[in-house]
Amino acid sequence: MISELLRVPAGPVDLAAFDTGGKPGFDGDKAAGEEALPALGAELADLQEKLFARGYTGGSGRVLLVLQGMDTSGKGGVLSHTVGLLNPSGLRLKSFKKPTKEELSHDFLWRIERELPATGEIGIFDRSHYEDVLVVKVHELADAAEVERRYDAINDFEAKLAAEGTTIIKCMLHVSREEQKQRLLARLDDPTKQWKFKPGDIDERGYWDAYQEAYEIALSRCNTEVAPWHVIPSDRKWYRNLAIGNLLLEALRGLDLDWPAPDYDVAEQRARLVNEGTP
Amino acid sequence: MISELLRVPAGPVDLAAFDTGGKPGFDGDKAAGEEALPALGAELADLQEKLFARGYTGGSGRVLLVLQGMDTSGKGGVLSHTVGLLNPSGLRLKSFKKPTKEELSHDFLWRIERELPATGEIGIFDRSHYEDVLVVKVHELADAAEVERRYDAINDFEAKLAAEGTTIIKCMLHVSREEQKQRLLARLDDPTKQWKFKPGDIDERGYWDAYQEAYEIALSRCNTEVAPWHVIPSDRKWYRNLAIGNLLLEALRGLDLDWPAPDYDVAEQRARLVNEGTP
Repeated sequence: MISELLRVPAGPVDLAAFDTGGKPGFDGDKAAGEEALPALGAELADLQEKLFARGYTGGSGRVLLVLQGMDTSGKGGVLSHTVGLLNPSGLRLKSFKKPTKEELSHDFLWRIERELPATGEIGIFDRSHYEDVLVVKVHELADAAEVERRYDAINDFEAKLAAEGTTIIKCMLHVSREEQKQRLLARLDDPTKQWKFKPGDIDERGYWDAYQEAYEIALSRCNTEVAPWHVIPSDRKWYRNLAIGNLLLEALRGLDLDWPAPDYDVAEQRARLVNEGTP
Repeated sequence: MISELLRVPAGPVDLAAFDTGGKPGFDGDKAAGEEALPALGAELADLQEKLFARGYTGGSGRVLLVLQGMDTSGKGGVLSHTVGLLNPSGLRLKSFKKPTKEELSHDFLWRIERELPATGEIGIFDRSHYEDVLVVKVHELADAAEVERRYDAINDFEAKLAAEGTTIIKCMLHVSREEQKQRLLARLDDPTKQWKFKPGDIDERGYWDAYQEAYEIALSRCNTEVAPWHVIPSDRKWYRNLAIGNLLLEALRGLDLDWPAPDYDVAEQRARLVNEGTP
Protein backbone atom coordinates (compact mmCIF):
# COMPACT_ATOMS: atom_id res chain seq x y z
CA MET A 1 0.00 0.00 0.00
CA ILE A 2 1.47 3.30 -1.16
CA SER A 3 -0.44 5.09 1.60
CA GLU A 4 1.50 3.14 4.22
CA LEU A 5 4.83 3.76 2.53
CA LEU A 6 4.32 7.51 2.34
CA ARG A 7 2.44 8.08 5.55
CA VAL A 8 4.14 10.27 8.14
CA PRO A 9 4.73 8.23 11.31
CA ALA A 10 3.31 9.57 14.59
CA GLY A 11 5.59 11.80 16.64
CA PRO A 12 8.01 14.60 15.83
CA VAL A 13 8.79 15.12 12.14
CA ASP A 14 12.23 15.79 10.68
CA LEU A 15 11.72 16.64 7.02
CA ALA A 16 15.43 16.32 6.29
CA ALA A 17 15.01 12.61 6.97
CA PHE A 18 12.50 12.30 4.10
CA ASP A 19 14.20 11.76 0.75
CA THR A 20 12.92 14.26 -1.83
CA GLY A 21 14.25 12.19 -4.74
CA GLY A 22 12.99 8.71 -3.89
CA LYS A 23 10.31 6.60 -5.53
CA PRO A 24 8.98 4.36 -2.76
CA GLY A 25 6.81 1.53 -3.97
CA PHE A 26 7.71 1.91 -7.63
CA ASP A 27 10.51 -0.07 -9.29
CA GLY A 28 10.27 1.35 -12.79
CA ASP A 29 11.97 4.31 -14.44
CA LYS A 30 10.55 7.61 -15.66
CA ALA A 31 9.16 6.17 -18.90
CA ALA A 32 7.40 3.39 -17.00
CA GLY A 33 6.06 5.86 -14.45
CA GLU A 34 4.70 8.14 -17.12
CA GLU A 35 2.89 5.17 -18.64
CA ALA A 36 1.62 3.91 -15.30
CA LEU A 37 -0.26 7.13 -14.47
CA PRO A 38 -2.78 7.24 -17.37
CA ALA A 39 -3.24 3.49 -16.85
CA LEU A 40 -4.90 4.38 -13.52
CA GLY A 41 -7.45 6.51 -15.36
CA ALA A 42 -10.06 3.88 -16.16
CA GLU A 43 -10.34 2.55 -12.61
CA LEU A 44 -10.25 6.05 -11.12
CA ALA A 45 -13.07 7.15 -13.42
CA ASP A 46 -15.10 4.03 -12.66
CA LEU A 47 -14.79 4.43 -8.89
CA GLN A 48 -15.41 8.16 -9.12
CA GLU A 49 -18.66 7.53 -10.98
CA LYS A 50 -19.71 4.91 -8.41
CA LEU A 51 -19.03 7.40 -5.63
CA PHE A 52 -21.08 10.01 -7.48
CA ALA A 53 -23.88 7.48 -8.08
CA ARG A 54 -23.92 6.62 -4.38
CA GLY A 55 -24.24 10.28 -3.45
CA TYR A 56 -26.88 10.85 -6.14
CA THR A 57 -29.05 8.06 -4.75
CA GLY A 58 -28.88 9.23 -1.14
CA GLY A 59 -25.81 7.35 0.07
CA SER A 60 -22.87 8.85 1.93
CA GLY A 61 -19.18 9.35 1.34
CA ARG A 62 -16.91 11.96 -0.17
CA VAL A 63 -13.17 12.39 -0.62
CA LEU A 64 -10.95 15.38 0.13
CA LEU A 65 -7.40 15.55 -1.22
CA VAL A 66 -5.30 18.32 0.32
CA LEU A 67 -2.19 19.42 -1.60
CA GLN A 68 0.49 21.46 0.15
CA GLY A 69 4.07 22.16 -0.76
CA MET A 70 6.70 24.81 -1.30
CA ASP A 71 6.57 26.92 -4.48
CA THR A 72 7.43 24.85 -7.57
CA SER A 73 6.80 21.59 -5.69
CA GLY A 74 4.23 20.78 -8.34
CA LYS A 75 0.70 21.28 -7.06
CA GLY A 76 -0.22 22.55 -10.52
CA GLY A 77 1.36 19.52 -12.16
CA VAL A 78 -0.68 17.20 -9.94
CA LEU A 79 -3.83 19.08 -10.91
CA SER A 80 -3.23 18.78 -14.64
CA HIS A 81 -1.73 15.28 -14.76
CA THR A 82 -3.38 13.39 -11.90
CA VAL A 83 -6.59 15.26 -11.11
CA GLY A 84 -6.96 15.69 -14.88
CA LEU A 85 -7.64 11.93 -15.09
CA LEU A 86 -10.90 12.40 -13.19
CA ASN A 87 -14.24 13.39 -14.64
CA PRO A 88 -14.72 17.14 -14.11
CA SER A 89 -18.30 16.48 -13.01
CA GLY A 90 -18.18 15.17 -9.49
CA LEU A 91 -14.92 17.01 -8.92
CA ARG A 92 -14.71 20.09 -6.75
CA LEU A 93 -11.39 21.83 -7.08
CA LYS A 94 -10.45 24.92 -5.11
CA SER A 95 -7.18 26.82 -5.32
CA PHE A 96 -6.85 28.92 -2.19
CA LYS A 97 -5.11 32.25 -2.72
CA LYS A 98 -4.05 34.96 -0.31
CA PRO A 99 -7.20 35.59 1.78
CA THR A 100 -9.41 38.56 0.92
CA LYS A 101 -10.34 41.23 3.47
CA GLU A 102 -13.71 39.55 3.94
CA GLU A 103 -12.12 36.15 4.47
CA LEU A 104 -9.70 37.62 7.01
CA SER A 105 -12.62 39.10 8.94
CA HIS A 106 -13.86 35.55 9.67
CA ASP A 107 -12.27 32.62 11.46
CA PHE A 108 -9.62 31.01 9.24
CA LEU A 109 -11.82 27.95 8.60
CA TRP A 110 -14.75 30.00 7.30
CA ARG A 111 -13.58 30.14 3.71
CA ILE A 112 -12.55 26.48 3.84
CA GLU A 113 -15.99 25.23 4.94
CA ARG A 114 -17.55 26.92 1.92
CA GLU A 115 -15.45 24.88 -0.49
CA LEU A 116 -15.91 21.39 0.90
CA PRO A 117 -16.96 18.65 -1.51
CA ALA A 118 -20.60 17.55 -1.38
CA THR A 119 -21.59 13.93 -0.83
CA GLY A 120 -20.47 11.88 -3.81
CA GLU A 121 -17.83 14.40 -4.85
CA ILE A 122 -14.04 14.35 -4.83
CA GLY A 123 -12.74 17.63 -3.46
CA ILE A 124 -9.25 18.88 -4.22
CA PHE A 125 -7.66 21.65 -2.17
CA ASP A 126 -4.69 23.33 -3.88
CA ARG A 127 -3.31 24.91 -0.71
CA SER A 128 -5.70 24.83 2.21
CA HIS A 129 -6.30 25.72 5.85
CA TYR A 130 -2.70 24.65 6.42
CA GLU A 131 -1.53 27.93 4.92
CA ASP A 132 -2.92 29.44 8.14
CA VAL A 133 -0.20 27.67 10.14
CA LEU A 134 2.50 27.85 7.43
CA VAL A 135 2.88 31.20 5.64
CA VAL A 136 1.01 32.80 8.56
CA LYS A 137 3.49 31.38 11.07
CA VAL A 138 6.59 32.09 8.98
CA HIS A 139 5.63 35.71 8.31
CA GLU A 140 3.92 36.23 11.68
CA LEU A 141 0.63 37.26 10.07
CA ALA A 142 -1.16 36.18 13.26
CA ASP A 143 0.13 36.18 16.81
CA ALA A 144 1.74 33.06 18.22
CA ALA A 145 -1.20 32.18 20.48
CA GLU A 146 -3.59 32.24 17.53
CA VAL A 147 -1.33 29.97 15.45
CA GLU A 148 -1.04 27.66 18.45
CA ARG A 149 -4.85 27.50 18.74
CA ARG A 150 -5.19 26.55 15.10
CA TYR A 151 -3.54 23.13 15.28
CA ASP A 152 -6.25 21.85 17.60
CA ALA A 153 -8.94 23.69 15.63
CA ILE A 154 -7.75 21.93 12.47
CA ASN A 155 -7.82 18.54 14.19
CA ASP A 156 -11.36 19.17 15.44
CA PHE A 157 -12.44 20.35 11.99
CA GLU A 158 -10.94 17.36 10.20
CA ALA A 159 -12.39 14.94 12.78
CA LYS A 160 -15.82 16.43 12.09
CA LEU A 161 -15.35 16.02 8.34
CA ALA A 162 -14.29 12.41 8.80
CA ALA A 163 -17.31 11.73 11.03
CA GLU A 164 -19.52 13.08 8.23
CA GLY A 165 -18.06 10.44 5.92
CA THR A 166 -15.18 12.33 4.33
CA THR A 167 -12.07 10.36 3.41
CA ILE A 168 -9.22 12.82 3.90
CA ILE A 169 -5.86 12.46 2.12
CA LYS A 170 -3.25 15.09 2.98
CA CYS A 171 -0.10 15.35 0.84
CA MET A 172 2.98 17.45 1.38
CA LEU A 173 4.87 17.68 -1.92
CA HIS A 174 8.46 17.55 -0.76
CA VAL A 175 11.18 19.11 -2.95
CA SER A 176 14.76 19.98 -2.09
CA ARG A 177 15.94 23.57 -1.92
CA GLU A 178 18.28 22.88 -4.86
CA GLU A 179 15.46 21.41 -6.96
CA GLN A 180 13.37 24.50 -6.32
CA LYS A 181 16.25 26.65 -7.55
CA GLN A 182 16.50 24.61 -10.77
CA ARG A 183 12.76 24.89 -11.33
CA LEU A 184 12.77 28.65 -10.83
CA LEU A 185 15.66 28.92 -13.28
CA ALA A 186 13.70 26.79 -15.75
CA ARG A 187 10.78 29.21 -15.43
CA LEU A 188 13.05 32.17 -16.10
CA ASP A 189 14.61 30.48 -19.12
CA ASP A 190 11.33 29.46 -20.79
CA PRO A 191 9.17 32.20 -22.35
CA THR A 192 6.10 29.96 -21.89
CA LYS A 193 6.75 29.84 -18.14
CA GLN A 194 8.04 33.31 -17.30
CA TRP A 195 4.53 34.43 -16.32
CA LYS A 196 4.59 31.99 -13.40
CA PHE A 197 7.64 33.66 -11.85
CA LYS A 198 7.58 36.57 -9.40
CA PRO A 199 10.71 38.20 -7.97
CA GLY A 200 9.12 37.54 -4.57
CA ASP A 201 9.65 33.81 -5.18
CA ILE A 202 13.38 34.37 -4.60
CA ASP A 203 12.72 36.42 -1.47
CA GLU A 204 10.67 33.53 -0.10
CA ARG A 205 13.64 31.19 -0.49
CA GLY A 206 15.27 33.20 2.31
CA TYR A 207 12.64 31.72 4.62
CA TRP A 208 13.23 28.13 3.49
CA ASP A 209 14.27 26.81 6.89
CA ALA A 210 11.41 28.57 8.66
CA TYR A 211 8.95 27.01 6.20
CA GLN A 212 10.43 23.56 6.68
CA GLU A 213 10.08 23.97 10.44
CA ALA A 214 6.49 25.18 10.13
CA TYR A 215 5.72 22.14 7.98
CA GLU A 216 7.35 19.85 10.52
CA ILE A 217 5.17 21.24 13.29
CA ALA A 218 1.98 21.04 11.21
CA LEU A 219 2.78 17.52 10.00
CA SER A 220 3.38 16.39 13.54
CA ARG A 221 0.56 18.25 15.33
CA CYS A 222 -2.16 17.51 12.73
CA ASN A 223 -1.32 13.92 11.85
CA THR A 224 -4.37 11.99 13.00
CA GLU A 225 -5.76 8.54 12.26
CA VAL A 226 -8.71 9.99 10.32
CA ALA A 227 -6.68 12.64 8.50
CA PRO A 228 -3.12 11.40 8.09
CA TRP A 229 -0.29 13.27 6.38
CA HIS A 230 1.77 11.81 3.55
CA VAL A 231 5.09 13.19 2.38
CA ILE A 232 5.43 12.78 -1.39
CA PRO A 233 8.98 12.77 -2.74
CA SER A 234 8.60 15.38 -5.46
CA ASP A 235 11.95 16.02 -7.07
CA ARG A 236 10.79 13.56 -9.76
CA LYS A 237 7.62 15.02 -11.20
CA TRP A 238 6.45 11.72 -12.69
CA TYR A 239 6.76 9.92 -9.35
CA ARG A 240 4.86 12.67 -7.52
CA ASN A 241 1.97 12.53 -10.01
CA LEU A 242 1.83 8.76 -9.95
CA ALA A 243 2.05 8.46 -6.16
CA ILE A 244 -0.87 10.83 -5.66
CA GLY A 245 -2.87 8.98 -8.31
CA ASN A 246 -2.27 5.77 -6.38
CA LEU A 247 -3.22 7.39 -3.07
CA LEU A 248 -6.53 8.51 -4.59
CA LEU A 249 -7.12 5.09 -6.06
CA GLU A 250 -6.46 3.34 -2.75
CA ALA A 251 -8.80 5.72 -0.94
CA LEU A 252 -11.59 5.08 -3.46
CA ARG A 253 -11.03 1.32 -3.34
CA GLY A 254 -11.40 1.51 0.43
CA LEU A 255 -14.94 2.84 0.12
CA ASP A 256 -16.38 -0.48 -1.17
CA LEU A 257 -18.17 1.27 -3.97
CA ASP A 258 -20.69 -0.41 -6.22
CA TRP A 259 -23.54 0.59 -8.50
CA PRO A 260 -26.62 1.46 -6.43
CA ALA A 261 -29.64 -0.82 -6.85
CA PRO A 262 -32.63 0.93 -8.47
CA ASP A 263 -35.40 2.06 -6.12
CA TYR A 264 -38.04 1.48 -8.82
CA ASP A 265 -39.29 -1.63 -10.64
CA VAL A 266 -37.13 -1.91 -13.77
CA ALA A 267 -39.52 -4.20 -15.70
CA GLU A 268 -42.48 -1.95 -14.94
CA GLN A 269 -40.67 1.19 -16.15
CA ARG A 270 -39.41 -0.62 -19.22
CA ALA A 271 -42.99 -1.62 -20.10
CA ARG A 272 -44.20 1.97 -19.60
CA LEU A 273 -41.57 3.24 -22.03
CA VAL A 274 -42.05 0.53 -24.66
CA ASN A 275 -45.86 0.86 -24.63
CA GLU A 276 -45.79 4.63 -24.49
CA GLY A 277 -48.40 6.24 -26.68
CA THR A 278 -50.18 2.97 -27.49
CA PRO A 279 -53.80 2.60 -26.34
CA MET B 1 -15.98 27.42 -39.17
CA ILE B 2 -18.08 24.97 -37.16
CA SER B 3 -19.56 27.90 -35.23
CA GLU B 4 -21.07 29.27 -38.43
CA LEU B 5 -22.42 25.89 -39.49
CA LEU B 6 -24.16 25.26 -36.19
CA ARG B 7 -25.22 28.76 -35.35
CA VAL B 8 -28.96 29.40 -35.14
CA PRO B 9 -29.96 32.02 -37.75
CA ALA B 10 -31.76 35.14 -36.56
CA GLY B 11 -35.53 35.00 -36.54
CA PRO B 12 -38.12 32.42 -35.52
CA VAL B 13 -36.76 28.93 -34.78
CA ASP B 14 -38.33 25.65 -35.91
CA LEU B 15 -36.40 22.88 -34.15
CA ALA B 16 -37.99 20.23 -36.38
CA ALA B 17 -35.99 21.76 -39.24
CA PHE B 18 -32.71 20.99 -37.43
CA ASP B 19 -31.47 17.46 -38.12
CA THR B 20 -30.69 15.64 -34.86
CA GLY B 21 -28.60 13.00 -36.64
CA GLY B 22 -26.36 15.09 -38.86
CA LYS B 23 -22.65 15.76 -38.66
CA PRO B 24 -22.16 19.18 -40.26
CA GLY B 25 -18.56 20.05 -40.99
CA PHE B 26 -17.23 16.54 -40.44
CA ASP B 27 -16.76 14.02 -43.25
CA GLY B 28 -15.45 11.09 -41.26
CA ASP B 29 -17.21 8.21 -39.54
CA LYS B 30 -17.58 7.40 -35.84
CA ALA B 31 -14.08 5.92 -35.50
CA ALA B 32 -12.53 9.00 -37.11
CA GLY B 33 -14.64 11.29 -34.91
CA GLU B 34 -13.61 9.49 -31.76
CA GLU B 35 -9.97 9.93 -32.77
CA ALA B 36 -10.41 13.55 -33.74
CA LEU B 37 -11.66 14.64 -30.31
CA PRO B 38 -8.59 13.78 -28.17
CA ALA B 39 -6.45 15.22 -30.99
CA LEU B 40 -7.90 18.63 -30.03
CA GLY B 41 -6.58 18.19 -26.50
CA ALA B 42 -3.08 19.59 -26.91
CA GLU B 43 -4.18 22.84 -28.57
CA LEU B 44 -7.11 23.26 -26.16
CA ALA B 45 -4.78 22.84 -23.18
CA ASP B 46 -2.22 25.23 -24.67
CA LEU B 47 -4.79 27.97 -25.32
CA GLN B 48 -6.45 27.38 -21.96
CA GLU B 49 -3.11 27.91 -20.22
CA LYS B 50 -2.45 31.07 -22.23
CA LEU B 51 -5.89 32.38 -21.24
CA PHE B 52 -5.13 31.56 -17.62
CA ALA B 53 -1.69 33.21 -17.89
CA ARG B 54 -3.28 36.33 -19.33
CA GLY B 55 -5.74 36.51 -16.43
CA TYR B 56 -2.98 35.78 -13.90
CA THR B 57 -0.90 38.69 -15.17
CA GLY B 58 -3.72 41.20 -15.08
CA GLY B 59 -5.16 40.81 -18.60
CA SER B 60 -8.79 40.29 -19.48
CA GLY B 61 -10.90 37.59 -21.07
CA ARG B 62 -12.88 34.56 -19.99
CA VAL B 63 -15.04 31.97 -21.69
CA LEU B 64 -18.49 30.69 -20.76
CA LEU B 65 -19.89 27.55 -22.36
CA VAL B 66 -23.60 27.00 -21.69
CA LEU B 67 -24.95 23.47 -22.18
CA GLN B 68 -28.69 22.91 -22.47
CA GLY B 69 -30.68 19.97 -23.78
CA MET B 70 -33.43 17.50 -23.05
CA ASP B 71 -32.75 14.62 -20.64
CA THR B 72 -30.29 12.10 -22.12
CA SER B 73 -29.12 14.61 -24.73
CA GLY B 74 -25.65 14.15 -23.33
CA LYS B 75 -24.60 17.10 -21.21
CA GLY B 76 -22.81 14.62 -18.94
CA GLY B 77 -21.05 13.04 -21.90
CA VAL B 78 -19.79 16.43 -23.05
CA LEU B 79 -18.47 17.11 -19.55
CA SER B 80 -16.52 13.87 -19.33
CA HIS B 81 -15.31 13.62 -22.94
CA THR B 82 -14.89 17.21 -24.11
CA VAL B 83 -14.54 19.31 -20.96
CA GLY B 84 -12.42 16.44 -19.61
CA LEU B 85 -9.74 17.42 -22.15
CA LEU B 86 -9.20 20.71 -20.33
CA ASN B 87 -6.98 21.29 -17.32
CA PRO B 88 -9.15 21.22 -14.18
CA SER B 89 -7.29 24.29 -12.89
CA GLY B 90 -8.63 27.26 -14.73
CA LEU B 91 -11.93 25.47 -15.27
CA ARG B 92 -15.07 26.46 -13.41
CA LEU B 93 -17.83 23.92 -13.86
CA LYS B 94 -21.27 24.31 -12.36
CA SER B 95 -24.16 21.89 -12.66
CA PHE B 96 -27.35 23.75 -11.86
CA LYS B 97 -29.99 21.65 -10.10
CA LYS B 98 -33.55 22.40 -9.07
CA PRO B 99 -33.26 25.73 -7.21
CA THR B 100 -33.18 25.71 -3.42
CA LYS B 101 -35.61 27.73 -1.32
CA GLU B 102 -32.96 30.37 -0.82
CA GLU B 103 -32.23 30.57 -4.53
CA LEU B 104 -35.93 30.90 -5.29
CA SER B 105 -36.19 33.81 -2.86
CA HIS B 106 -33.85 35.82 -5.10
CA ASP B 107 -34.11 36.93 -8.73
CA PHE B 108 -33.46 33.97 -11.05
CA LEU B 109 -30.05 35.34 -12.08
CA TRP B 110 -28.78 35.59 -8.49
CA ARG B 111 -27.47 32.03 -8.31
CA ILE B 112 -26.04 32.30 -11.82
CA GLU B 113 -23.94 35.39 -11.08
CA ARG B 114 -22.27 33.55 -8.19
CA GLU B 115 -20.95 30.85 -10.51
CA LEU B 116 -19.47 32.92 -13.31
CA PRO B 117 -15.89 32.17 -14.37
CA ALA B 118 -13.21 34.58 -13.19
CA THR B 119 -10.87 36.33 -15.60
CA GLY B 120 -8.66 33.73 -17.24
CA GLU B 121 -11.05 30.89 -16.53
CA ILE B 122 -13.24 28.74 -18.75
CA GLY B 123 -16.67 28.40 -17.16
CA ILE B 124 -19.01 25.56 -18.03
CA PHE B 125 -22.71 25.70 -17.17
CA ASP B 126 -24.42 22.31 -17.16
CA ARG B 127 -27.96 23.69 -17.38
CA SER B 128 -28.17 27.41 -16.70
CA HIS B 129 -30.41 30.46 -16.43
CA TYR B 130 -32.23 29.06 -19.47
CA GLU B 131 -33.96 26.53 -17.20
CA ASP B 132 -35.85 29.57 -15.89
CA VAL B 133 -37.57 29.96 -19.27
CA LEU B 134 -37.70 26.22 -20.10
CA VAL B 135 -38.83 23.91 -17.28
CA VAL B 136 -40.32 26.96 -15.56
CA LYS B 137 -42.39 27.81 -18.62
CA VAL B 138 -43.44 24.23 -19.40
CA HIS B 139 -44.57 23.52 -15.84
CA GLU B 140 -45.80 27.06 -15.17
CA LEU B 141 -43.53 27.47 -12.14
CA ALA B 142 -43.68 31.25 -12.63
CA ASP B 143 -46.47 33.33 -14.12
CA ALA B 144 -46.41 34.15 -17.81
CA ALA B 145 -45.49 37.81 -17.31
CA GLU B 146 -42.44 36.83 -15.27
CA VAL B 147 -41.28 34.35 -17.92
CA GLU B 148 -41.83 37.03 -20.54
CA ARG B 149 -39.68 39.47 -18.55
CA ARG B 150 -36.86 36.98 -18.35
CA TYR B 151 -35.94 36.88 -22.05
CA ASP B 152 -34.94 40.53 -21.99
CA ALA B 153 -33.32 40.13 -18.59
CA ILE B 154 -31.18 37.31 -19.99
CA ASN B 155 -30.17 39.40 -23.01
CA ASP B 156 -29.19 42.30 -20.74
CA PHE B 157 -27.25 39.95 -18.47
CA GLU B 158 -25.38 38.28 -21.32
CA ALA B 159 -24.61 41.63 -22.95
CA LYS B 160 -23.08 42.77 -19.66
CA LEU B 161 -20.98 39.60 -19.45
CA ALA B 162 -19.79 40.10 -23.03
CA ALA B 163 -18.90 43.72 -22.29
CA GLU B 164 -16.78 42.49 -19.37
CA GLY B 165 -14.79 40.37 -21.81
CA THR B 166 -16.65 37.07 -21.62
CA THR B 167 -16.82 34.96 -24.76
CA ILE B 168 -20.19 33.20 -24.55
CA ILE B 169 -20.92 29.94 -26.39
CA LYS B 170 -24.45 28.58 -25.98
CA CYS B 171 -25.21 25.03 -27.12
CA MET B 172 -28.55 23.26 -27.34
CA LEU B 173 -27.90 19.51 -27.53
CA HIS B 174 -30.58 18.40 -29.94
CA VAL B 175 -31.82 14.77 -29.80
CA SER B 176 -34.91 13.22 -31.33
CA ARG B 177 -37.77 11.93 -29.19
CA GLU B 178 -37.06 8.40 -30.46
CA GLU B 179 -33.35 8.67 -29.58
CA GLN B 180 -34.29 9.75 -26.06
CA LYS B 181 -36.50 6.69 -25.74
CA GLN B 182 -33.65 4.40 -26.82
CA ARG B 183 -31.28 6.06 -24.34
CA LEU B 184 -33.75 5.69 -21.47
CA LEU B 185 -34.21 2.01 -22.39
CA ALA B 186 -30.42 1.62 -22.43
CA ARG B 187 -30.28 3.06 -18.91
CA LEU B 188 -32.93 0.63 -17.71
CA ASP B 189 -31.14 -2.32 -19.30
CA ASP B 190 -27.69 -1.55 -17.89
CA PRO B 191 -27.11 -2.09 -14.14
CA THR B 192 -24.30 0.48 -14.26
CA LYS B 193 -26.73 3.10 -15.53
CA GLN B 194 -29.99 2.33 -13.69
CA TRP B 195 -29.14 4.90 -11.00
CA LYS B 196 -29.43 7.67 -13.59
CA PHE B 197 -33.07 6.81 -14.35
CA LYS B 198 -36.10 8.19 -12.51
CA PRO B 199 -39.69 7.18 -13.32
CA GLY B 200 -40.34 10.92 -13.66
CA ASP B 201 -38.14 10.89 -16.78
CA ILE B 202 -40.97 9.09 -18.61
CA ASP B 203 -43.56 11.55 -17.26
CA GLU B 204 -41.48 14.39 -18.66
CA ARG B 205 -41.66 12.84 -22.15
CA GLY B 206 -45.36 13.72 -22.08
CA TYR B 207 -44.27 17.37 -22.22
CA TRP B 208 -41.90 16.86 -25.18
CA ASP B 209 -43.69 19.24 -27.54
CA ALA B 210 -44.04 21.92 -24.89
CA TYR B 211 -40.30 21.70 -24.19
CA GLN B 212 -39.45 21.94 -27.89
CA GLU B 213 -41.64 25.03 -28.15
CA ALA B 214 -40.06 26.60 -25.06
CA TYR B 215 -36.62 25.96 -26.58
CA GLU B 216 -37.71 27.50 -29.88
CA ILE B 217 -38.81 30.68 -28.10
CA ALA B 218 -35.64 30.90 -25.99
CA LEU B 219 -33.40 30.18 -28.98
CA SER B 220 -35.12 32.89 -30.97
CA ARG B 221 -35.56 35.55 -28.27
CA CYS B 222 -32.07 35.20 -26.75
CA ASN B 223 -29.97 34.75 -29.89
CA THR B 224 -27.74 37.81 -29.92
CA GLU B 225 -24.54 38.73 -31.71
CA VAL B 226 -22.53 38.59 -28.46
CA ALA B 227 -24.19 35.44 -27.13
CA PRO B 228 -25.33 33.32 -30.06
CA TRP B 229 -27.07 29.96 -29.83
CA HIS B 230 -25.82 26.83 -31.57
CA VAL B 231 -27.90 23.70 -32.13
CA ILE B 232 -25.71 20.61 -31.86
CA PRO B 233 -27.01 17.49 -33.62
CA SER B 234 -26.73 15.03 -30.73
CA ASP B 235 -28.14 11.68 -31.81
CA ARG B 236 -24.52 10.73 -32.51
CA LYS B 237 -22.67 11.11 -29.24
CA TRP B 238 -19.24 11.27 -30.88
CA TYR B 239 -20.29 14.10 -33.18
CA ARG B 240 -21.82 16.08 -30.33
CA ASN B 241 -18.61 15.81 -28.24
CA LEU B 242 -16.39 16.69 -31.17
CA ALA B 243 -18.52 19.63 -32.33
CA ILE B 244 -18.46 21.22 -28.89
CA GLY B 245 -14.70 20.64 -28.66
CA ASN B 246 -14.31 22.48 -31.94
CA LEU B 247 -16.59 25.33 -30.82
CA LEU B 248 -14.43 25.79 -27.72
CA LEU B 249 -11.27 25.67 -29.78
CA GLU B 250 -12.55 28.26 -32.25
CA ALA B 251 -13.58 30.55 -29.42
CA LEU B 252 -10.15 30.29 -27.80
CA ARG B 253 -8.37 30.84 -31.12
CA GLY B 254 -10.44 33.98 -31.55
CA LEU B 255 -8.94 35.50 -28.40
CA ASP B 256 -5.47 35.97 -29.95
CA LEU B 257 -3.81 34.43 -26.94
CA ASP B 258 -0.08 34.44 -26.36
CA TRP B 259 2.31 34.07 -23.45
CA PRO B 260 2.42 37.31 -21.45
CA ALA B 261 5.73 39.17 -21.44
CA PRO B 262 7.39 39.24 -18.00
CA ASP B 263 7.02 42.48 -16.00
CA TYR B 264 10.45 41.97 -14.39
CA ASP B 265 14.00 41.88 -15.74
CA VAL B 266 14.69 38.22 -16.54
CA ALA B 267 18.49 38.53 -16.58
CA GLU B 268 18.49 40.38 -13.26
CA GLN B 269 16.33 37.76 -11.56
CA ARG B 270 18.40 34.96 -13.06
CA ALA B 271 21.54 36.52 -11.61
CA ARG B 272 19.93 36.89 -8.19
CA LEU B 273 19.06 33.20 -8.17
CA VAL B 274 22.37 31.95 -9.49
CA ASN B 275 24.41 34.10 -7.06
CA GLU B 276 22.11 33.40 -4.14
CA GLY B 277 23.99 32.85 -0.92
CA THR B 278 27.31 33.96 -2.37
CA PRO B 279 28.90 37.11 -0.93
